[in-house]
Amino acid sequence: METNVQRIKQDIEQLAQFTATPKEGVTRFSFTPEDRAARNYIKDEMQRAGLAVSEDAAGTVIGRRQGQVEGPTVMLGSHFDSVKHGGAFDGTAGVVVAMEIARVLNEHNITTHYPIEFIAMIEEEGGRFGGGLFASRAMAGMVTEEELIGHCDEAGVSLAQAMREFGLDPANIKAAQRRPEELKAFFELHVEQGPILESEGTALGLVEAIVGLKTYQVKITGRPDHAGTTPIHMRADALLAASEVVQQVRQIARDVGGGAVGTVGKMEVLPGASNIVPGEVHFTVDLRSHRESALEELSQRFQAALKEACSKEEGLSYTLTTKLDAKPAQLSDQLRNVIAEEAKARGISAKTMISGAGHDTQIMATLTDAALIFVPSKGGRSHCPEEWTDYADLKKGADVLLGAVLAVAEGK
Amino acid sequence: METNVQRIKQDIEQLAQFTATPKEGVTRFSFTPEDRAARNYIKDEMQRAGLAVSEDAAGTVIGRRQGQVEGPTVMLGSHFDSVKHGGAFDGTAGVVVAMEIARVLNEHNITTHYPIEFIAMIEEEGGRFGGGLFASRAMAGMVTEEELIGHCDEAGVSLAQAMREFGLDPANIKAAQRRPEELKAFFELHVEQGPILESEGTALGLVEAIVGLKTYQVKITGRPDHAGTTPIHMRADALLAASEVVQQVRQIARDVGGGAVGTVGKMEVLPGASNIVPGEVHFTVDLRSHRESALEELSQRFQAALKEACSKEEGLSYTLTTKLDAKPAQLSDQLRNVIAEEAKARGISAKTMISGAGHDTQIMATLTDAALIFVPSKGGRSHCPEEWTDYADLKKGADVLLGAVLAVAEGK
Repeated sequence: METNVQRIKQDIEQLAQFTATPKEGVTRFSFTPEDRAARNYIKDEMQRAGLAVSEDAAGTVIGRRQGQVEGPTVMLGSHFDSVKHGGAFDGTAGVVVAMEIARVLNEHNITTHYPIEFIAMIEEEGGRFGGGLFASRAMAGMVTEEELIGHCDEAGVSLAQAMREFGLDPANIKAAQRRPEELKAFFELHVEQGPILESEGTALGLVEAIVGLKTYQVKITGRPDHAGTTPIHMRADALLAASEVVQQVRQIARDVGGGAVGTVGKMEVLPGASNIVPGEVHFTVDLRSHRESALEELSQRFQAALKEACSKEEGLSYTLTTKLDAKPAQLSDQLRNVIAEEAKARGISAKTMISGAGHDTQIMATLTDAALIFVPSKGGRSHCPEEWTDYADLKKGADVLLGAVLAVAEGK
Repeated sequence: METNVQRIKQDIEQLAQFTATPKEGVTRFSFTPEDRAARNYIKDEMQRAGLAVSEDAAGTVIGRRQGQVEGPTVMLGSHFDSVKHGGAFDGTAGVVVAMEIARVLNEHNITTHYPIEFIAMIEEEGGRFGGGLFASRAMAGMVTEEELIGHCDEAGVSLAQAMREFGLDPANIKAAQRRPEELKAFFELHVEQGPILESEGTALGLVEAIVGLKTYQVKITGRPDHAGTTPIHMRADALLAASEVVQQVRQIARDVGGGAVGTVGKMEVLPGASNIVPGEVHFTVDLRSHRESALEELSQRFQAALKEACSKEEGLSYTLTTKLDAKPAQLSDQLRNVIAEEAKARGISAKTMISGAGHDTQIMATLTDAALIFVPSKGGRSHCPEEWTDYADLKKGADVLLGAVLAVAEGK
């Protein structure tokens, strides 16, 4: 049995039309007209594939296929929201591949032992309301009332209000929760968003762990003196300290090793004039590792480096705020082995790897055995209009996922 | 003879009212209603002090006092335009002190040997049209037609158009030019805009040279990869290279020494997301020294450091644009000695120093013997609403300037 690459291509291209920024990439925020249009397309295709379609209390589209027994259920899918000016594959690829697998099972009139649910989630990116991983966290019962009221989009619309306007009841959010005993396994296929598979010429990445992540917001305060009249030794240059931290974050990630990464991605320099010594610098620090101890070491050493950098000139001070603190997630070795065997049987190359990005799978892993398959990203690019995965690569991932889902759903 | 601190205070406070940003500092751009209001106040005060008031073709207010001979003329003054949200003293202090000296000479019915012109210039800061030092460059015949047409404010109004709307004829700009033989000397009093006088407890700074300045705009281009999924060794992080340059600019200024300074004051990091490796960084580099050879060394070593920083990761490239390139200006030793003697006679402390900021005096020094006197800036602050000089300090500067101007105008 295999999937149909033409249908995969058509779904990707159709869904890419539902964007708030035509010709400037896919911008599909949650609970918007673009969400509605993409959702209707997905629901139609699911129905055509013989699935019983519903939506849970968080707005996740669920297409269910009965099994020979009531449960537990095998789930597969991904998200169909995007970042601003994102690409056509991030998230959507996994939704489309799941729909295609539903079609193939339907065409072959297969009734599996366990039921299967095909899932299309939203607000994974946090593009509209911040936070992200919303639909999976709702399934895990992690979404709080504070978040529904407190997380707002740029126009000041809260998550709760947007849900109501979309026809959902935020007070009912707990109804989306799934119990571990209801679930047999969770599978997600996603684009790698990194350069490893392409550069190594490997078709699939079998993710064994998803990195933990600590994100900080740093503010260094100095003094905004005149760049001509203030001698070097009398300055408190906030950018000098910040740039020392940038260098150190890189060095620390290198020292810790094992795939650990550290990034300063956002920086604002104030007052921001060529002839004024920077008096204030705001920047983010993003630290990741799949090992909890390594993540802790990154964090400790970064904080020491920040303190040290701000001690080099008199008059420098800093504040440090933790924005995100997510533990590493271990995925299921057993499911990964099932997938690896399926890839081997089909002659498709695969390698075990770490996911450096967060995914709904890491939340689903708190509920059930979870597996994440990566397909190559051209140039490692994602979150941009140029984001691309060759359809032939997507089909390889889809075929292997089809085999693995079938194996698990048949109770093999 | 001495100046009247109450009148100095009153002038400063009155002129501070003519701002486009009440309660948020002085914003007095050239050829605006605020310029007009301040200009009228200055012209009235000059007339009251017995001066013959006129405006030159660039909009500089000139109050002339006849001498016993036709010429050459002793000039003193400063500018009365400001930066956005600037202070009440930068420039204005020198205009006010000149007006007060005119009043004292008038009250004492003194007719000096040489005539004296009291000068109030505009567009020194370049706050509205960029560039700056406009009025003094007009006197030196340096303002070009290209500049008049090409330099526009944020609303797209050209310098030429703004002049016309203000009642001036830009085609007539060369009429503002003064010949060296018309001038005997030029004096300017200005706030230090730096911390040296205050920190050393010295009343006056006698400037021997104004620094040369090279300003660059740098763009470093890398690749905007995902911060989680792109291994450290596969990145081209534009901010990593830029922060290396920030460190090096500081180190190079230290190495070159002799008061040389180097500053990265403005920086923009793109795309600017916590989870994306910076793909592009734009920043300025400002290098200053009063020695031409030192300025050249700063520039060469900075450019080498930029090249080196961009060679550390594959995929980094840069562009470098020169925005400003001004040679150091040597001021008159003879005038400085006259001022130093006057200070000594009055028991007022003074020290020879370098000006790290540009001033109209550096342009006037190309026409005649020029002198620049600094008064202390509280906390070294300027170009901000908190900018402050104690009135007692301003009076000390005014008294010494009065004596020095009188000595030179009397041909002593």
